[in-house]
Amino acid sequence: MNAPVLVINCGSSSIKYALIDSDPQAPRLEGIAERLGSEEARLKGKNSAGERFSQPLPGADHTQALNAILERMEGRLPAAVGHRIVHGGEHFTQAALIDDSVMAAIQTTAALAPLHNPANLAGIAATQNVFPELPQVAVFDTAFHQTMPPRAYRYALPENLYAEHGIRRYGFHGTSHAYVSQRAGELSNRGTGGWLTAHLGNGCSTSAVWNNQSQDTSMGLTPLEGLVMGTRSGDVDPGLHAHLHRQLGWSLDKIDDVLNKESGLLGLSGLTNDMREIEEAAEQGTPPHSWR
Amino acid sequence: MNAPVLVINCGSSSIKYALIDSDPQAPRLEGIAERLGSEEARLKGKNSAGERFSQPLPGADHTQALNAILERMEGRLPAAVGHRIVHGGEHFTQAALIDDSVMAAIQTTAALAPLHNPANLAGIAATQNVFPELPQVAVFDTAFHQTMPPRAYRYALPENLYAEHGIRRYGFHGTSHAYVSQRAGELSNRGTGGWLTAHLGNGCSTSAVWNNQSQDTSMGLTPLEGLVMGTRSGDVDPGLHAHLHRQLGWSLDKIDDVLNKESGLLGLSGLTNDMREIEEAAEQGTPPHSWR
Repeated sequence: MNAPVLVINCGSSSIKYALIDSDPQAPRLEGIAERLGSEEARLKGKNSAGERFSQPLPGADHTQALNAILERMEGRLPAAVGHRIVHGGEHFTQAALIDDSVMAAIQTTAALAPLHNPANLAGIAATQNVFPELPQVAVFDTAFHQTMPPRAYRYALPENLYAEHGIRRYGFHGTSHAYVSQRAGELSNRGTGGWLTAHLGNGCSTSAVWNNQSQDTSMGLTPLEGLVMGTRSGDVDPGLHAHLHRQLGWSLDKIDDVLNKESGLLGLSGLTNDMREIEEAAEQGTPPHSWR
Repeated sequence: MNAPVLVINCGSSSIKYALIDSDPQAPRLEGIAERLGSEEARLKGKNSAGERFSQPLPGADHTQALNAILERMEGRLPAAVGHRIVHGGEHFTQAALIDDSVMAAIQTTAALAPLHNPANLAGIAATQNVFPELPQVAVFDTAFHQTMPPRAYRYALPENLYAEHGIRRYGFHGTSHAYVSQRAGELSNRGTGGWLTAHLGNGCSTSAVWNNQSQDTSMGLTPLEGLVMGTRSGDVDPGLHAHLHRQLGWSLDKIDDVLNKESGLLGLSGLTNDMREIEEAAEQGTPPHSWR
């Protein structure tokens, strides 16, 4: 089984991909098709020589973008396709070989990730068009955290919100926390005992891992809870929403938008969501305004 | 200065009071006037012999209730009146002798506690009617926490929400955390160094105290953040509100109501917000449904 695996992270108007070989020395082909469905659609990436390319795909949909990606694979056909699926709800506790029942379960969970799961399903359908013979695997952000005990995943909300509507802490970045805790055990020769892991990107979360099982994590029902992130607030007072509504007349949509897109490092600094730029600005004597 | 102090906690339709002597052996007179403004208004309390009384005050307002309280003081006239004021914003870092400028500042802070501060002001005005000669002191729930550093009190929100609208962590139960940490230092002979204090009532909060100064606390902009409480949820995902709105069609007012009044121990147990009743039910083999 030396054939490479095509890994896909599909959004509503984008497909990120990487062709990954079992031989870590083999060159990785990767890129992103973005603005799908618009005249500005484009495929950008790197070839096996490390050279960048950028190719217009005006009006392309997901299937057309995948065909363009296929042409960039330099003849190395994948043996399987792995899909990053954001939300597996309580249904998926590990990765799953995709069939009709798996797709139905991802659809059922769409209420918990209305922006992500339908886009992920569109990516699976497009991949089936382009690679009808290949096995496809769904890998869930939430699955690793399904080992959390109730004291970690329950909110102190009315029981029926959990029982009938699935409102609980799910956690995200599960593949990252699983990999990092396992790899830390290997590198340190301390094994899989207890690890506190941190995934620090534009989204950030922490996890407490014991014997390869997530015991708790900072993200919750959605990827907004927990740590301060690039543009996301992380934890705030749950009374903030009503306060902003009553005092400033903000709608819930606006509040949700500000908490997700204008807060975090961007909101605190008034400058940028990029820690490097914030540190650079501070070194040059122009600290972000809130830290003056 | 052996004369007692009258302590008042005034709500929109209630006045809790206690007459407290500097001699801890002296009997304490205390009670509550409730349902003020309605035909069911009533004054309930205990006299110095520990006997309970309950007196109808149909239609009484705050001033009339205070006159009825005055008649229950058994001739022990207070030397001063202390008011519990919920929100002092960033203006008050300690208790304040009440004058026009203090009342104006409490009024300015009313946006942060729209249910509480106006009621507190009504109580001050009524007290001035009944005891025009007595000094009155405002004691703030928030003042003790004004020593918190920015890393503890700032949310990762757009700068102007703090700078222009005062949105930050304030913390509450300040008089409790101040007293408990100081008393713990005395009783333990360990002094005022570092204490972690917990105020556990129907509302709950924790505080980290160093040298009599609050360094951090679990409650935030409002008394909804932090620990699981009797009927309050404490921390939840800040994305919960938009999720409930989009998936269940709930209004922000309903969401805020459920988080404040139907969550916490009541929501989890589906039974009661009283820990004693929950423990009793569990012992009798009828555990709250969410723990089955």
